[in-house]
Formats: sequence, structure tokens, C-alpha cells
Amino acid sequence: MRFEIKDRDAAGRLGRLYTNHGTVTTPTLLPVINPNKMIIAPKDMKSLFDVEMVITNSYIIRKHDDLKKTALEQGVHHLIDFSGPIMTDSGTFQSYIYGSVSVEPLEIIEFQKNIGVDVGTILDVFGTPDQTRKEASDGVNETIKRAEKSVGIKENMGIACTVQGSIYPKLRKRCAKALSLLDADLYPIGGVVPLMEQQRYAELVSVILASKKGLSPGKPVHLFGAGHPLVFPLASALGCDLFDSSAYVKYAQQDRLIFPTGTLHLKDVDELPCCCPVCSSMTASEVKKTDKKQRTTLLAKHNLFISMQEIRTIRNAIRNNSLWELVEQRAAANPFLNDALQILKKKKEKQWIERFEPIHKKKAVRYTGPHTIHRPFIDRTMNRVNEWYQPSSDVIVVLPESEKPYHIHYQSLIKKIKDCQPTVDIIVESPFGPVPLCLDEMYPFAQSVFPDHLDKETKAFSKNQMKRFVAGKKVLFWKGEKTLQELRSVSKAGGKEQIDDDVQRLRAVAMIQFGKECTSALFSGNLSYVKSKKTLKIRNVYSDEDHVLSLRASDGLFTLKLVGGKRLHDHVASPRYRVIVHEDAVPFIKEGKSVFSKFVLDGDPLLRPFDECIIADKNDEFLGVGRCLLNVDEMKAFSFGQAVKTREHVS
Amino acid sequence: MRFEIKDRDAAGRLGRLYTNHGTVTTPTLLPVINPNKMIIAPKDMKSLFDVEMVITNSYIIRKHDDLKKTALEQGVHHLIDFSGPIMTDSGTFQSYIYGSVSVEPLEIIEFQKNIGVDVGTILDVFGTPDQTRKEASDGVNETIKRAEKSVGIKENMGIACTVQGSIYPKLRKRCAKALSLLDADLYPIGGVVPLMEQQRYAELVSVILASKKGLSPGKPVHLFGAGHPLVFPLASALGCDLFDSSAYVKYAQQDRLIFPTGTLHLKDVDELPCCCPVCSSMTASEVKKTDKKQRTTLLAKHNLFISMQEIRTIRNAIRNNSLWELVEQRAAANPFLNDALQILKKKKEKQWIERFEPIHKKKAVRYTGPHTIHRPFIDRTMNRVNEWYQPSSDVIVVLPESEKPYHIHYQSLIKKIKDCQPTVDIIVESPFGPVPLCLDEMYPFAQSVFPDHLDKETKAFSKNQMKRFVAGKKVLFWKGEKTLQELRSVSKAGGKEQIDDDVQRLRAVAMIQFGKECTSALFSGNLSYVKSKKTLKIRNVYSDEDHVLSLRASDGLFTLKLVGGKRLHDHVASPRYRVIVHEDAVPFIKEGKSVFSKFVLDGDPLLRPFDECIIADKNDEFLGVGRCLLNVDEMKAFSFGQAVKTREHVS
Repeated sequence: MRFEIKDRDAAGRLGRLYTNHGTVTTPTLLPVINPNKMIIAPKDMKSLFDVEMVITNSYIIRKHDDLKKTALEQGVHHLIDFSGPIMTDSGTFQSYIYGSVSVEPLEIIEFQKNIGVDVGTILDVFGTPDQTRKEASDGVNETIKRAEKSVGIKENMGIACTVQGSIYPKLRKRCAKALSLLDADLYPIGGVVPLMEQQRYAELVSVILASKKGLSPGKPVHLFGAGHPLVFPLASALGCDLFDSSAYVKYAQQDRLIFPTGTLHLKDVDELPCCCPVCSSMTASEVKKTDKKQRTTLLAKHNLFISMQEIRTIRNAIRNNSLWELVEQRAAANPFLNDALQILKKKKEKQWIERFEPIHKKKAVRYTGPHTIHRPFIDRTMNRVNEWYQPSSDVIVVLPESEKPYHIHYQSLIKKIKDCQPTVDIIVESPFGPVPLCLDEMYPFAQSVFPDHLDKETKAFSKNQMKRFVAGKKVLFWKGEKTLQELRSVSKAGGKEQIDDDVQRLRAVAMIQFGKECTSALFSGNLSYVKSKKTLKIRNVYSDEDHVLSLRASDGLFTLKLVGGKRLHDHVASPRYRVIVHEDAVPFIKEGKSVFSKFVLDGDPLLRPFDECIIADKNDEFLGVGRCLLNVDEMKAFSFGQAVKTREHVS
Repeated sequence: MRFEIKDRDAAGRLGRLYTNHGTVTTPTLLPVINPNKMIIAPKDMKSLFDVEMVITNSYIIRKHDDLKKTALEQGVHHLIDFSGPIMTDSGTFQSYIYGSVSVEPLEIIEFQKNIGVDVGTILDVFGTPDQTRKEASDGVNETIKRAEKSVGIKENMGIACTVQGSIYPKLRKRCAKALSLLDADLYPIGGVVPLMEQQRYAELVSVILASKKGLSPGKPVHLFGAGHPLVFPLASALGCDLFDSSAYVKYAQQDRLIFPTGTLHLKDVDELPCCCPVCSSMTASEVKKTDKKQRTTLLAKHNLFISMQEIRTIRNAIRNNSLWELVEQRAAANPFLNDALQILKKKKEKQWIERFEPIHKKKAVRYTGPHTIHRPFIDRTMNRVNEWYQPSSDVIVVLPESEKPYHIHYQSLIKKIKDCQPTVDIIVESPFGPVPLCLDEMYPFAQSVFPDHLDKETKAFSKNQMKRFVAGKKVLFWKGEKTLQELRSVSKAGGKEQIDDDVQRLRAVAMIQFGKECTSALFSGNLSYVKSKKTLKIRNVYSDEDHVLSLRASDGLFTLKLVGGKRLHDHVASPRYRVIVHEDAVPFIKEGKSVFSKFVLDGDPLLRPFDECIIADKNDEFLGVGRCLLNVDEMKAFSFGQAVKTREHVS
């Protein structure tokens, strides 16, 4: 079963899953079909609700003779009358609810194969949150054993191997790692229904993170039993690709309406705050007057409309790189989701997520509240400003936040400052922390919208970043004429020479994007550049008349030209900047074709999605330059899909 | 034109507006109808979109001979084919756009009357945000002059007098006060479109607050040109009742889709993140392929569906007393709305809003982020804890936040503490600040959901409240056995005697609800109480066998019994606790009928909506007890609707 990434944001991905019964776009929701009681007909799910894939229960089908007979004779697609891909669960959840099940692990695999499901699930051991570590560990060991045997007999069926391990992160990771060694097709995260039922979202996030860390980034991940759309955005941002749930029916049976921000009981609804096809054709009092059965169907439809709407909202947010905004907005709707976001503020969790975060995004960073400043790519950027950027002087003048771009807003002030002290480095105290003037057009500094009033947490972040940046330097916070006087009195600091503002900008952006080691390669020799007549921004950069870089107006970042790539290649040792490909791929790259994941041997672990890169073969022969779609771990893990979009190549 | 309040939350109200063409529930949106180009037929607006009232432009109708002729001959309802109430604008906005208009102020009033509109608007002078104070003041003076003359000739038509005054709060308030002296029916806040177009929401909020402060609380308020649903919840929370907008069409013409949290351009939408009747019947690419005209109609429909959905969402939030949650959630979607909420944190603005805030709410306080703790009724509660509550001792033990109810969670610990020092007062350090144990079942302390991790702003609020509470008292923060030792060593502080926990609870809740002065009246003599067998909570309270109070289990607050009311009446001077009614109302009250606003002469300015009150006549004759639906300013301002729900009465 093929899976590939088409777009991405945070650690989330817009994927495509290819099954025997058609292609599915992820993230998606698989509504649970109870073969004994189909409240909404599966075939209507596709046409009316945009549902692409459903899940039903092979254990239940097997237990009921009539269902079993039809399924075995005519197949599961006939049984529930659904032509798209069907996944089945195995009875694990029933074993959790009822204590045990009357089927053997391999029996249920054989049965799932026999009824023609697209993705069958192993009979894993459900690990509850109240288990001891020992109990959970025993369950994990048994789950791994069963998975190994089950995968061995999967044949043509896709197989899902469920990660267990209760609430113990190390166990989760160990289970995930062991299962990732198998030739499975899908990795559900199991045993999380009790956490979701009790809104223990912080623990849920820890479980997802631990599981994802152990799993191969190249396989789709399913969050088993994730039902309420409230958790979809956050789980998607952490790299969950599939959800399944009977919540749409269960909530309907309790007269409860699902919304992306929570649930409302029908009795608390005088007017339907919704315009789905159900809610726009009936009033609240009309719905209340229907009999129980009809009401359940109506509310189940509403719940499924809203759940699938949230799935589309997430997919759009991934495409527009605004997934964090969505996650944070949803956290404002639920105090326990708020707690869950705290988990992502831990350094090690941020660092894990950061590796998947695109290097630039289509939309500006929009502030939602105190969570915003903790987005992992902001840490990355500020680390680079602190570690990769080299100020032009040891004397630093700090200006307050202003309208953007800073260097235009502060034009006359800058002139005054430079007249006093030509080599001084000027930075602006932004919500992110210190932003050197010469980086003020670069993502995310220019592409961000913060309110005038910042919350205390954002202020603290900014202040800490500032403290880190100015440590050991001579710093003058702008105080008008007084600062100018002070500047006149300091000696020409560090003996550095004055650099042209544009050149400083080029060097600074390159350092943030490619690290300090790039500058001698890219900017050696006679440096020149041309500006766009329209935007007045630098467009193309030449070194000794070689066109080495172009600067994108939209996000102020460089694209790497062939000559620039060659220079980096010749000056900086492998694997820095490289994606290293198998020899079989070389002829295709020389024709300008993209680099496919299955040909990637290795590469620079510092490369991030949408980073500029060098394409080289295993002998470090330079082949071209391109744009990464994946990080290197992903390139190595995926067997399908593009890894690098080749931009220029040697012939 | 009658207007009355049916329900309320924050300073917002769920109202009913009675017009010549039917009744309208507020808050609501009046879609702007361009009589020359009706993208959606007005008659469909009622049946498909739940629109109850529309607005069109009398100036445009008057300018076009054919429209004018039809309107004069057959009426405006025939002209646009809409049977519900129609409001018209007067040309003011056109004078802003084009510099001037070719009609006299009284001419356009006569014309609006002649074409049969339900609510006509005066030709006021549009005050732009960039005006000087002098220019704005001149405009206000002229507006007031025109309003006076226009109201004089309104006859049977409802008339809207628009508040101007640019961005100057004092001018806005002056204009509002002057207009409130007139017999107008509706008060639009005008001149705000430029602020909304530039997302200057903080200034918009200042303008709304200043205008509302000057206006009579008994009249409906319209926010002129408020188009995007993003501002509806906040404006509603500040007491705006009507919105009007052509945004649904204007955005559609620009290929933009409106959502409650913002706007998406069609080009950025690969899948429609919506399930309105338009979006659930077509895909994004199908919409993109339609021709411009059809696309505009489709998107206008989507935009109107979503706008009216947000209106219903607001009305539900008012009914469920969860309007602040909605306002704060929307602020997470827009940095400038975030800034707007900062305005509401100013002491004087909080104090103004507080007077309208219900004394108890149907739903728990749910944390959304740093804004939550600044809700005005939280200040009220904490002020009362600090000023009205009297600790049972000068020695105070502070326990950390825990599960609720605190006195159950800390049961064994409390016993230990009381064994050491029987008269000690125990409080819990909650997100609100100090919560005395004996108040732990009272709204909002018990009815609140906060995350485990609090943001820095909430922590600071809690800490400040704590500091204020413990000032001058002997305070021991719980440190286990060490605290017990300390307690044993302090002398029996203040010489106060030990009080039974239940009695302490009764006294404490009464103090918070009715002030210190109530206790001698309500609890003099022999105090007894009965508990509910089911909830084990105190149910009825007797003093010398008089049933004085009942305690509501849902929010831990008292209802006042007739004897209790009589006692308060006899012990505390008028107007404290009173709603004073006209003699004409006395016979009705003695039959148990509600008190209607038009009979209210005066009352206790401390009474808040949903407060318990005494009903008395102008000679302070005791008539009964009841539950306020309005505050006293509102009771005096309204000419229609209920002011007090009589619970018990003298015969």
C-alpha cells in the first residue's frame, strides 16, 4: 500500500494513500460502520459527506453468522455496500470492553483477508492508562509477537500494526520501533480511547509524540478511536494521518451535536448554530419534535458533516501552512487542549517537531495568544539568529518594535546612527526577540502579524531571546539623542569595516539559511547584485559574474542557482547541503527529473522541508540543485513519491 | 417601536424588536439590499437564510426615477419584494463616499415615511476617524440638530438617530446623550466603517463603549456597516443589537469566502472548509469554474449563510451565558481583535460592563486563555470577597488549588488544621485568587474549568487578588506538618469563637450575595437549616423557624423567601435591595404578576440582573420578593417588558 506526502505543515502532512479500492487524501476520518446498524448508509457517505474510506469491525462480522456468510461469499464491500477502501478492526477494542474475545490473532487476519478488506488490523493487546509499567510492557511484547506473525501472512492485504504501551512514553517508543521493522502498511496508535473520553489531552499528546518518535516517518499513522473533531487539528499537527470514530453516532444517540470547538446538547440549543444541510433545512424545535430514531439519524448526519468539514479545514490549513493557527484556535475552546499544548513547549518535543517544519511558509505567522511564540520553527529561527548570524559590530543599537519593514520605517534614524558610528549593528526588539535590520524582509520576521499588546509569555520569550543575543556585546537601547552621544564616544568597535547595507543583508540572509560556512563559498570574489525595478528589492546575486543566488520577494529567502550549488559543493564537505542519490537516479536527474525518495541514500540531517539543497551521487559527484520536499529521515524512509524538486542540473 | 430584553450575557442582550411588519429577534444582521442589483432575492433571505429584517437605501431609491415611482406608488416592501421589516439608510454614507448628497435632511425623512419603511434613518453627518476634534464636534452638533427636527416629523415610522463623534469618546458620549433625550426608536453607531475596513478594532471598541455609555440602555443599538462576522460577538457583548452589511456581496465580488474567524480567498481553497448548502453541493474546483456572475451569487450565498450562522451562535451563547467564551475564541483568530479585548481590561470599562453582567450564569466559566480572568463579573466577585466577606479569624491558612469541591477534597486536612486551631479561616489559592472554603460551592468558584497550566497573566491576577486579601492578616501558606506546628503556637486569634462549618457557609454566601448588612436581618435569632437528602447540600434556611432563604444546588446562591425579604426590608433602609414600583402596579404584584419596567420608579443601584430583590412601593411598603431581569438603570429606561419576576408577594 503506497503512501506519499504531497504537502505539509508543523509535523503534519497532507498525504495520499493508494489502496486496492482507490486513493485517499489524508488526514481523513474513517467513520465507523456498525454492520448490524447502519445509521447512515456507507454509499451515501461518499456522495454526501466526502468520506473516502470507512472502517468496520471484522470481529463483529465474524461473530454474526449472516454477516459472516455474506462477507465471505460476496466480500465486505458488498456487505456494507461501499465501493471505496475499507479498513477493519480486529476485536481488540471488544477485548478491552468485554475482557476477552473468542478469536485467535492469526484467525482474524485470515478472516480479514478472506472478506477482502483493504487494510486489516492485527489483534493487538489493548493497553489501558491505568496499567502498571509491567502490565503494559507484557502487553507490548505480546502485541509485537502477534504483529510479526500477522505481517508474515498479510499477502495482498494492507496491514495495520497497532502501537500500544499505555501512558509510558518509553514503552510506546519501543513498541513503535519494533513494529516499524515489520513490513506493515499502517500504524495505528491504540489504547487512547480512555484518555480521550476523560479529556486527558496532555497525556494523549505525550503518547502520540512517543509513538511517532519510534515510528518510521514514511508510513501513515492512524489515531484509533479519535472521534471528536476537537482533537483532529492537534493530532494532525503531530503527524496523525487517519482518524476513525463512531462518535458521530454515539453523540447523536445522546442528543448531542458535535462542533469543531466542542459539543452542545440539543436541549441547550434554541437555534441551530450551524448551516449544514440538516441544520439549514430544519429548526431546532422541529428537530426536537422528531422521534428518537429519526432524531438520531438527523444528528448523526449533522455530526458527520461537521467532522468532515473539520477534516477539510485541516487539509486547507496544511496547504496554506496555517495549521498552528488552527491548532491554537481550537485550544482556546477547551481548557484541556490548552494543557495539551503545554507539552509541545518542552525543548525536546519542540526539537522533534522542528525537523518536520517547512523552512518557509505560504502565510504569515498570525498571533493567536501565548501559544504562538512557542511554535517550533520560531525556536529554529531564533537559534539561527543567535548561532549562525554574525553581527557586523560588537556595538549594537536596539530599536523598539515598529511598522514593517523596519529598515524603511527607521530610514532617517538609521542614517543618524550610522553617521555617528558607521559599523554599528542595529536590531529591532520584535515579539520574536532580536531581529537584525538586515533580516527584516526574511520569513518569518516580515511575514508576521502580532497585536500591539503582547501577553506576558510572549514578552518573556522576546526578552529571553534578547538577553541571549546581546550577551557579551556592547548594547545601547535606543534613548534618542543620548544614544547618539554615547555612540559618538565608543571607539570603532571590533575594528570591523563598514559594509554596504545590501551586502550585509545578503550575507545575513545567507548565514541564516545556509549557516556561517556558506559565505566564503558563495560570496568570494567580486560580489554584485541586481534589484527588481518593481519591488526595488535585491533579485539576483552574482559572485565574479557567476549567478549564485536569487532572492525570493515573497519571503526574502534565497533560491540556490547551479553555480551557487557547485560552489557550496566544492567548499563544504559532504554530507552538508547534500541529498545523496543512488546511481540509478543519475540519468533521470540529468534530464531534470525530480529526485524520488526510493533513490535517496543519505543526506544532510540539517536539511528541512523546502530547504535548498545540492544533489550529489554516492561519490559526491555534483548533479544539481533543488528544493527538498522532505527532511532526510523522511527521504530515507519513504519508498514512494518525490523527495527533491530538481531546479537546475548538470548535463 | 417596542424593544425588550429576553435574555442576556456580558453587556449583550437577546432582545425582541416589534415593528409594523413583524417581530425581530436580536442580535441580528440586516443584509444590505441594493435595489438596483439584488444578488439574492430578499424574499429568499427569509426562507433560506433566517433573515428577519433587511436594510436598503432610501437615497438610492429616491435618486432613480423608476425605483422612486414604484416605491411611492406601491411601497418599499413591494419594490424589493420583502414582507418583513425594512430599515432604510438616508444617504449619509453616500455623502461620506461622494462628499455630498443632493437631498435635504427633512426631505429624506418625508420620503422614507412616504415609501412605508419600518425604520427610517436621519441624514446625519458622517464623522471620519481622521477628523480633528473641532470638525467632529461641528458634525455632532449638526447631527443633533437634524435629529431633533427629524424626530419631530417621524409620525408612525420608527426612526434611527445615528451617534457620531469620530474617534473622540467624549464627543461620542455627548452625541449619544443628546440623541437619547429624543423620542427615537433605534440608535445606530455611525462613522465606523473606516475603522472596520482597517481592522482598527481597539478604536472601534472605544467608540462603541463611549456611545453605549451615553445612550439609554432601553433602546436598541445598531452598529452601522458592521459586516464581517468577526466583529459580531464582541460588538454583541458590548450591547450592539443590530448589524447591517453588504459584506456578503462585496466579499463575494472579490472571490472571498467569509468565515466566523476570518476570510479565505477562493484561490487559497482547494477544498471548501464548510458544509453550508452551497459548499456541500459543490466542490471548490466546480465553484472556481463558474462564470463571474454565478460565482458571485454562490459566494454571496455562502457568505450570508455563515454570517447568519454566527448570529445564531451568538444568540445561543447569550442564552447559555457563554458569550465571553465565544468572544475570546474569536479573538484568537485575529491579532487586532486581541488588541480590542485589551480595552475591556481597563478598570472603568470593566466597571461599566459589570453593571449589566448576570449575577449567576447557566454554564461554568471555561478558560480560553489570558483574557478569561479579565471578565468583568470576576472582578465583581473578587471585590465582594475582599470587601463583603468577613473571615472567621485573623489567622488564615492558604491551601493550593485542588479538585473541586475543595472542602471535600481537603476533608481530612481541614480536620487536622481545625484540631490545631479551631477558629482559623481556610482559603484556597484558585485561578481567581483566594476562595474561602465556605464559598467553594458558589458561582463561579465551583462552576469553572481552568487548565492545570495557567498563563502568566492569570497567575498574576490570582497573585494580586491574594495579596489584597491577606493584607494585614496572619497568613500561613500550607507547608504540611510545619504549618500545623505554627498553628498550634498562635493564640486563638481575634478572640472569635468557632462557628459550625455550615453556618459559616450560609453567612459567607449571604455576605457575598447581599453584603455584610444582611446578616443581622437574615440570621438573627435561632438559626437552623435542612439539607437535601439527595445532594447532601443545605437546602432551606430558617431563622426562628421563619423560612428566610433557600440555597440553589446548581450555583450555590440563595433565593430570597418572603419572610427573608421582609426582614431585609425592615432592617436595611431604602433603596437597598429595593425595586420601587408605581402605585398602579401594586394590585398586579399582589396577584403575583411580574413587575413591568414601565412601572419601576427607582431602585437599588447595586442590583444586578438575576439578583434577588425586594419589591416595594414609593412609600416603602413591602410588596414581595423577586428576581431582577434587568439592572435598575435598565428598568427605568425600558417602557416595555418585564423588570422583575415576582416570586412571593404579600396579599
